[in-house]
Amino acid sequence: MSPEEFRRFGHEVVDWIAGYLARPEDYPVLAQVEPGQLRSQLPTSPPERGQPMSEILEDFERFVVPAVTHWNHPSFFAYFATSASAPGILGEMLSAAFDAKAMLWRTSPASTELEEVALDWLRQLMGLPAEFGGVIYDTASVATMHAVAAAREALNLHVREDGMSGRADLPLLRLYASEQAHSSVEKSLIALGLGQRSLVKVPADASFRMDAAALKHLIEEDRRAGMLPFCVVATVGTTSTTSIDPVPAIADVCEREGLWLHVDAAYAGSAAVVPELRRVLEGCERADSLVTNPHKWLFTPFDLSALYSRRLDVLRRAFALTPEYLRTPEQDAVRNGSDYGVQLGRRFRSLKLWMILRYFGHEGLAALIREHCRLARLFAGWVEASPDWELLAPVPLSVVCFRARPSVEGETDGARAARLDALNERLMTAVNATGEIFLSHTKLHGAFTLRLAVGNIRTNESHVRRAWELLNEKLSDISNEG
Amino acid sequence: MSPEEFRRFGHEVVDWIAGYLARPEDYPVLAQVEPGQLRSQLPTSPPERGQPMSEILEDFERFVVPAVTHWNHPSFFAYFATSASAPGILGEMLSAAFDAKAMLWRTSPASTELEEVALDWLRQLMGLPAEFGGVIYDTASVATMHAVAAAREALNLHVREDGMSGRADLPLLRLYASEQAHSSVEKSLIALGLGQRSLVKVPADASFRMDAAALKHLIEEDRRAGMLPFCVVATVGTTSTTSIDPVPAIADVCEREGLWLHVDAAYAGSAAVVPELRRVLEGCERADSLVTNPHKWLFTPFDLSALYSRRLDVLRRAFALTPEYLRTPEQDAVRNGSDYGVQLGRRFRSLKLWMILRYFGHEGLAALIREHCRLARLFAGWVEASPDWELLAPVPLSVVCFRARPSVEGETDGARAARLDALNERLMTAVNATGEIFLSHTKLHGAFTLRLAVGNIRTNESHVRRAWELLNEKLSDISNEG
Repeated sequence: MSPEEFRRFGHEVVDWIAGYLARPEDYPVLAQVEPGQLRSQLPTSPPERGQPMSEILEDFERFVVPAVTHWNHPSFFAYFATSASAPGILGEMLSAAFDAKAMLWRTSPASTELEEVALDWLRQLMGLPAEFGGVIYDTASVATMHAVAAAREALNLHVREDGMSGRADLPLLRLYASEQAHSSVEKSLIALGLGQRSLVKVPADASFRMDAAALKHLIEEDRRAGMLPFCVVATVGTTSTTSIDPVPAIADVCEREGLWLHVDAAYAGSAAVVPELRRVLEGCERADSLVTNPHKWLFTPFDLSALYSRRLDVLRRAFALTPEYLRTPEQDAVRNGSDYGVQLGRRFRSLKLWMILRYFGHEGLAALIREHCRLARLFAGWVEASPDWELLAPVPLSVVCFRARPSVEGETDGARAARLDALNERLMTAVNATGEIFLSHTKLHGAFTLRLAVGNIRTNESHVRRAWELLNEKLSDISNEG
Repeated sequence: MSPEEFRRFGHEVVDWIAGYLARPEDYPVLAQVEPGQLRSQLPTSPPERGQPMSEILEDFERFVVPAVTHWNHPSFFAYFATSASAPGILGEMLSAAFDAKAMLWRTSPASTELEEVALDWLRQLMGLPAEFGGVIYDTASVATMHAVAAAREALNLHVREDGMSGRADLPLLRLYASEQAHSSVEKSLIALGLGQRSLVKVPADASFRMDAAALKHLIEEDRRAGMLPFCVVATVGTTSTTSIDPVPAIADVCEREGLWLHVDAAYAGSAAVVPELRRVLEGCERADSLVTNPHKWLFTPFDLSALYSRRLDVLRRAFALTPEYLRTPEQDAVRNGSDYGVQLGRRFRSLKLWMILRYFGHEGLAALIREHCRLARLFAGWVEASPDWELLAPVPLSVVCFRARPSVEGETDGARAARLDALNERLMTAVNATGEIFLSHTKLHGAFTLRLAVGNIRTNESHVRRAWELLNEKLSDISNEG
């Protein structure tokens, strides 16, 4: 494509994006398509000859866009709501043009050093200690997998060299996480060959926080049974309810037991950027590693997950491997990103984060996150004030767990539970089918629970208010239908 | 940022990229900076208040760009030369704007179905059988890790459930790859907890291809020693020399021994798009899995690695894990991308690949790759015709392995080997310091070997010719200096 053509289509795409971000509400937030619909609209074979970009962009708009679920829609309240801020998108455009593979310092000094700078800035914003170095990965799942691998390496059992199969000398390794921990912890154990059996799910208290006394007890029990406890994963901001594990008490246990403490702060780490919320990371200064996702609640286009650790040397020892074709004269004087993980090639992700931290500044980021928490509390207040609804968990940050609970006279407890589960699931399906808002769910103490997650940069009070109206409208419709 | 502002800065960035791609030669291909230079130029703390985008873009140009090694430069001949084509960059821009997390079909039907369509198109272009389904990952390292994990799962030893620690029943698992295989195979084994001890490096022949008879022998030996062979990784296009392992013979061994055959065609898979080069994948139709990287030699911006497998069900069995908060009504009728690996969130990568396959068409892609192979042969011809230079490996595709070998009278073999190693390393440093071209090296039979890798979309005969001139100039300079 000639530079002139690229300029022309590039401007066209920028204009499209500008229009899109100006009014994402023109689209249904949850794609209103059937499975297979997009696939059936496209040719089953690739074209023999090249096609004009204008035609491709037309098909993009005609076929692809209707099948998009719009994460950038201000009424995306499902999972963890996220957003790609404008400076982040500009950063991604430049990264795409450079197309760097930041595997070695040499192959991308800019990416390597900007990663150190941007991650150190973010560390300061979150109030983590200076001895925490950082590495950027794609996702928290991958960051956590690497943290657990480092914990395994720290045991000095030669797992890197000798592996775990065919060894009679290895006891069963055990990792502890709350029953509310993210599924990525279990997946990490599966991938690393430790298996689901190595995961101990620690009970949570009534507010869905890990019970540190139970943790201590479980570790002691495992030791007595000849197993080898090696790691605890605490969560700051669990996926279902954003509950915050008692990290200071957990750190005490880890210290006494000599276990690696990894903190999953994928969502809530960003909250620590707000001075009055910095306490969410209390105790995390004692962790061995911590993951936070700027692509979740720091307005950074996906993907960018940051792993911090005071023991990056152990992570490096677990993964560094330099074949001859990757040796460079400067290798001992620089950081080579690929030494810290499975991935050799790494995208130039730090650019967008650096641009975002500068564009918004500390104050700007804190103001956005603070407002999201206010909106969640506002919504929670409406829920609490209504006899037809109830909160199912505390609201420490920007996610509300709730359900409709209209009463029916003379009902048994079991019948009520089943009725409310069915009702709330039907309610979720109904509001999502409008395309106006998108909610997802979880289960808490066995009950089907709606979640309203605030986190998109474009979400303001009107969107949250409309979500509340719509939920009440649909509840009324369903009640009238019987 | 207002839509107007985004439009303005978006156009500015597009213009910058258009100018950049029109003349990447204005920049040194290898960043001419010292370690720490960029870091030292930036503030050590983040700004308290937001800063204007114009200022950020100025600093980007002033500080960041000089520290970029330009993978899009037509004289980038190091490692595997790659490039981000214009339609691919446009695709990345749109993906960044959507900011999708394609973890479930529901969270991005467009990404999920376009992934199926684009990968099936690419499969057809490479001539792989219809029973090969595909999954997109970030990198070949991650794709290979997942393939090896699937091979482990296929053993039905309950490694997913029970792991490998604390088990006396598990023999030592063994995987076989040529001594020329990529380091990512070893890293996969480290991550998966199988360890370096589980890797058997199979000798290669004089042309750097796996010796299939030796493979057979090593497997038998391991079986006799009570070990459990479970996987063979064959390479189509090794990193050092692009040698092609004899996959038909290796597939015979795997079939007889009941081993999972994974093919690393990260680089050379793209060559199969050229009808007369399709033979490079001979035998791969019998593989259990195969990885190829459109981000290497198919003009796709990094990252996009495609894993194909006839046994995606095994991969899914190894990794699928659906907590309540990720359940959807349609989950049994659709493909959820996160079921196939460690990563939960996944970028909308298929869009750029779909746009590239359409923009260039089969003919366009084949013409580019064919020309790159011609340029490599041309360069190899110059090397062969000159008494001062020699080829150190065959040139099956677009990479030339060579060295300078000016003669000195009355030298011992050992002295000659040491002199040529030092000379060629010095030569590489000298040409790279010009910023005109960028070469990397490997070692072959112990000898320091220069590599010229052709693969960038902007590379034409003039760039290869200039590389040859420059190498000869520097050789002459060094010879004159003594």
